Amino acid sequence: MPVSVAILGPTGYSGLEIIRILLRHPEARVAYLGGRREERPHIADIWPSLRSLLDLRVESMEPEEIPPGVDVVFLALPHGVSLQYVPHLLGRGFKVVDLGADYRLKDAAAYKKWYGLEHTDPANLTRAVYGLTEFYRDQIARADLVANPGCYPTSIALAVAPLTKTGLADKATIVADSKSGISGAGRQPSEETHFPECNESVAAYKVGTHRHAPEIEQTLTEISGDPWRVCFVPHLIPMDRGILSTCYVRLKQPLPTEHLQRLFAQFYAREPFVRVRTDGTLPKTKDVWGTNFCDVAVRAVGDLAVVVSVIDNLVKGAAGQAVENMNVMFGLDEKAGLL
Amino acid sequence: MPVSVAILGPTGYSGLEIIRILLRHPEARVAYLGGRREERPHIADIWPSLRSLLDLRVESMEPEEIPPGVDVVFLALPHGVSLQYVPHLLGRGFKVVDLGADYRLKDAAAYKKWYGLEHTDPANLTRAVYGLTEFYRDQIARADLVANPGCYPTSIALAVAPLTKTGLADKATIVADSKSGISGAGRQPSEETHFPECNESVAAYKVGTHRHAPEIEQTLTEISGDPWRVCFVPHLIPMDRGILSTCYVRLKQPLPTEHLQRLFAQFYAREPFVRVRTDGTLPKTKDVWGTNFCDVAVRAVGDLAVVVSVIDNLVKGAAGQAVENMNVMFGLDEKAGLL
Amino acid sequence: MPVSVAILGPTGYSGLEIIRILLRHPEARVAYLGGRREERPHIADIWPSLRSLLDLRVESMEPEEIPPGVDVVFLALPHGVSLQYVPHLLGRGFKVVDLGADYRLKDAAAYKKWYGLEHTDPANLTRAVYGLTEFYRDQIARADLVANPGCYPTSIALAVAPLTKTGLADKATIVADSKSGISGAGRQPSEETHFPECNESVAAYKVGTHRHAPEIEQTLTEISGDPWRVCFVPHLIPMDRGILSTCYVRLKQPLPTEHLQRLFAQFYAREPFVRVRTDGTLPKTKDVWGTNFCDVAVRAVGDLAVVVSVIDNLVKGAAGQAVENMNVMFGLDEKAGLL
Amino acid sequence: MPVSVAILGPTGYSGLEIIRILLRHPEARVAYLGGRREERPHIADIWPSLRSLLDLRVESMEPEEIPPGVDVVFLALPHGVSLQYVPHLLGRGFKVVDLGADYRLKDAAAYKKWYGLEHTDPANLTRAVYGLTEFYRDQIARADLVANPGCYPTSIALAVAPLTKTGLADKATIVADSKSGISGAGRQPSEETHFPECNESVAAYKVGTHRHAPEIEQTLTEISGDPWRVCFVPHLIPMDRGILSTCYVRLKQPLPTEHLQRLFAQFYAREPFVRVRTDGTLPKTKDVWGTNFCDVAVRAVGDLAVVVSVIDNLVKGAAGQAVENMNVMFGLDEKAGLL
Repeated sequence: MPVSVAILGPTGYSGLEIIRILLRHPEARVAYLGGRREERPHIADIWPSLRSLLDLRVESMEPEEIPPGVDVVFLALPHGVSLQYVPHLLGRGFKVVDLGADYRLKDAAAYKKWYGLEHTDPANLTRAVYGLTEFYRDQIARADLVANPGCYPTSIALAVAPLTKTGLADKATIVADSKSGISGAGRQPSEETHFPECNESVAAYKVGTHRHAPEIEQTLTEISGDPWRVCFVPHLIPMDRGILSTCYVRLKQPLPTEHLQRLFAQFYAREPFVRVRTDGTLPKTKDVWGTNFCDVAVRAVGDLAVVVSVIDNLVKGAAGQAVENMNVMFGLDEKAGLL
Repeated sequence: MPVSVAILGPTGYSGLEIIRILLRHPEARVAYLGGRREERPHIADIWPSLRSLLDLRVESMEPEEIPPGVDVVFLALPHGVSLQYVPHLLGRGFKVVDLGADYRLKDAAAYKKWYGLEHTDPANLTRAVYGLTEFYRDQIARADLVANPGCYPTSIALAVAPLTKTGLADKATIVADSKSGISGAGRQPSEETHFPECNESVAAYKVGTHRHAPEIEQTLTEISGDPWRVCFVPHLIPMDRGILSTCYVRLKQPLPTEHLQRLFAQFYAREPFVRVRTDGTLPKTKDVWGTNFCDVAVRAVGDLAVVVSVIDNLVKGAAGQAVENMNVMFGLDEKAGLL
Repeated sequence: MPVSVAILGPTGYSGLEIIRILLRHPEARVAYLGGRREERPHIADIWPSLRSLLDLRVESMEPEEIPPGVDVVFLALPHGVSLQYVPHLLGRGFKVVDLGADYRLKDAAAYKKWYGLEHTDPANLTRAVYGLTEFYRDQIARADLVANPGCYPTSIALAVAPLTKTGLADKATIVADSKSGISGAGRQPSEETHFPECNESVAAYKVGTHRHAPEIEQTLTEISGDPWRVCFVPHLIPMDRGILSTCYVRLKQPLPTEHLQRLFAQFYAREPFVRVRTDGTLPKTKDVWGTNFCDVAVRAVGDLAVVVSVIDNLVKGAAGQAVENMNVMFGLDEKAGLL
Repeated sequence: MPVSVAILGPTGYSGLEIIRILLRHPEARVAYLGGRREERPHIADIWPSLRSLLDLRVESMEPEEIPPGVDVVFLALPHGVSLQYVPHLLGRGFKVVDLGADYRLKDAAAYKKWYGLEHTDPANLTRAVYGLTEFYRDQIARADLVANPGCYPTSIALAVAPLTKTGLADKATIVADSKSGISGAGRQPSEETHFPECNESVAAYKVGTHRHAPEIEQTLTEISGDPWRVCFVPHLIPMDRGILSTCYVRLKQPLPTEHLQRLFAQFYAREPFVRVRTDGTLPKTKDVWGTNFCDVAVRAVGDLAVVVSVIDNLVKGAAGQAVENMNVMFGLDEKAGLL
């Protein structure tokens, strides 16, 4: 019997991407969609691309209305909304994968500082498992509630972990310079994402103040058993999808590129979705477009290691990793539906 | 003494473009900006590109506040707004170039039909001169009020007039298939113009129902002394600027391409801003990017003449032609500031 | 046992797309790749996106080297090359789907006129079935050699056939104005496809002289049992993928939009990959991005019917339709691997 | 009498941009164009945008053919070519502004290392003045030969100099992460710049090995009187023009953002083309599109100063700064033709 899935928030880009992936998933099916529109529109009226592919209306978001046969609920909701639903969803016995930010920061005070809201569900915050699959696979397998990582933190943690976790990195501030396609800003129109404003232009934004910064530092610290500081600067790139993060890590002692490449290749040798370049090429975001892969390359430059990683922000950075986590939670092949 | 210019509506794309052109104009200067924001922001806070180039605040739009030394007022306002200001502006002795649609359709009933508003200034509607410079130069020179043409009508009328005005075109419906950059939709964010919605995509819109359709038919009819029907279909292209119109005109009798090229070259031989291709190349919008030119090529295909024209929608399609008309109105070199 | 597939020409965009589709196909697998590079590169060195997904080298193109277990050979080759290989491939007992142009025009003289080459395989030209699946399904099921349609002809024939085949269309020249993403130009760099030349620009090209024009006319004529003339003008749009064709067809007598919509909906009611819009919306190319769908809308404008169709030029316009045809040839579900 | 200008290499993007700027320059005129094509094409056949604006053919590149009345020669040539022409041009009494790389690196051995060529004109290498106008204005005023800076070095040196020159920066390796539009790669088509390869994608390239790296280090060292190491990583962005450089500089001791902003504002207070943001906004490349401005913002993030600078790579990063230098060399207003 396939895993039965409900999606709350199917009208945003991550929601659509979950649907797209699950339509091809051999062991899961989309059973329920929940949103806020009173008129309960057909999903094909929201996304014409789904016409003839998925015959569901966007029903209520109320947990009581979700059919009991559902196994897992994906939340693709703004921060501050998920935490209102999670206790009820868990209470009704659903597993939950939250693509939003509400359960990522372990510290409720940090949540309040960065998101400006009191965290009203601290109990589940403690139980939630951070869904960076490569590093939390075992906990995810046992989890009821997975906090799916942010897109930037995924691209940066996967790039930097082989250096921080192995003790090669010096404790100097790590620089993480990320370039993201504009779908990362969500589906709500704004001046920043109005085509003639962002096309033919690059912009840095939230320099050192983006909400993903504490998430990145928390993750590196947890993975590496040591506190790390990261200077994170995101940029908006005139393209739909993709994140390229260029990370600059000071090494305790210089190492040649070949050594670093070998290290990275070994580090990720058994990971199905991390591909390390050792052939002298560098990844571009198009190489992972529409896929759940993270491609990584590393170079030695003076006393720094420069790591370049690319992901599709909507797949490995959101919906794909969410499905990957679902696969782990339900004992399926981790790659099911994702190749 | 330079011509002193006020601009009402400098916060949109056409408004910015008027400023950019006038900053380089040898015989005009921007003296006043008027808008609706109560805080009267500095123009460089609206458009950072203007920092250190223009030291003006966006003051009130009220005609009484415009300094008496101003010679001409450019209106870059939504339809329905210009007609509230024009009578007062003319009454205060300013000349007016209206980049909006309020004075383009000569028939107040047609205005009501297409724009959904009663025309409250029919007297000036009669006096207004349609600012397609190539065809109304003499009237523009004597005009107080110029209705600057729409971007699509400019590109289409210039493409088709050599065939309709010379009696070569059959009376079958002319097909005008236009492709426009997204700045043509204005600066107001919307789902249609949200980057991830319109990037990597082409869309037709308002098939046969766009408000520029009656303007095109009116213009061809006025120029050619005969009623014409046009099937006009606009498309949104993922680029900032530019309109390419491909016009399909049935000829009374087939003519070879060379003949048509010669005809077009002669027709526009004395026009400073229409360049006819006779060398076998076809124009692309980038060839006229940022300029006031309209480049045109013509081909015979069976019983049809296919005419391809390109303009920059913000220049020849808006601000540039507005300045061109100002030049004519004030007896300046028509090309001043525009090369 | 899955259908075993060889691909000759896997280093172009269509070749990659065939691979991508077949990697997800439940009843087919890629068994052999053939190209011209002497060094026989690994496919992942050509396409880094395929790393860890397909472990094949690009071997020789010689028919003798293709393993006998292969069932069908896809040709993604320049015109003039396929016809050198097809006789040998058929002779070795392989079925063939040719994505190129060599077997599309039924008339060898027309082939010579438009492609500048003598057709050296007229026998198979006669046997080849044109792979516009919607109209040639039965013949395709029995065919050994399928000539997969061009991208533009697919988008235009599907748009116009409901009017020509039903006798509603007048015999006036049909105007087909197509807008294509730049992947349609292939993978060979050129000035026209150099990013700073074609980005932020629209261009018409080969006005009335594109090689797809006779293919379109042949197809409409065959489908509708009557000769048709089409004025076909393609345009290059700054995006990777997608074709939107706007077709202007004069009707024998005017019909309301609702009538036309109903007609189209009935015409394609049983087609799995043609979706007719009857809800007042218009399709954009993004709605079919990466899919095998053709979305169509129709409007009445005066005495014309305006039909807008969108496809992904690399899927329904090339690799997807090729796989669709393979499915038909091998008695599989026509939709297998394509949803 | 206007300055009379010859341009060798007018068929590339920088060459076109010099022409565009000089066409609006009140005190200079383009008198001669020299290139390599034997057929001596009209410049409007190379650049249709120049039709009716500049009536010159592209003549020979031989110094003897340049008319004696020419005052200054702009070289927009590949590296290794300029140094073959410069001695002869200077010998004939022309001043020279070289937009290429041949006279930028002061050390002939470094030139050989990075460009792979023996420097055959060491005498003029010594005389050449590096044309970063803000820092070498006095020498430029007296120079016969100006080596116009690279696009990346301009954006990075202007960003970082206020910290290195004032002694605030620690000597740790400076990270310079630059994002460039694709016109920076020149006009020669290649796989990297083929639209469907680079559109919808971001790529890092030449990580730590780009030829601009030694130029950046040389410039910072010369300006600041102290050796500096820079880890420079360029990226290709799917847009025509613009460079955004994000520079990460460790401070000797942390300083608040306000302090840094004030410092930058004072540092560039008298510079006409450097605009420091002190209002909390960050610059995007579109803010300087088509202009000679460099907009700069600075933020304190932990122990780092993050400096974001934007330029138009073809203007301040090439043709604009070249004209700025010409203005200085000939005692004109430095801003002439550039506002």
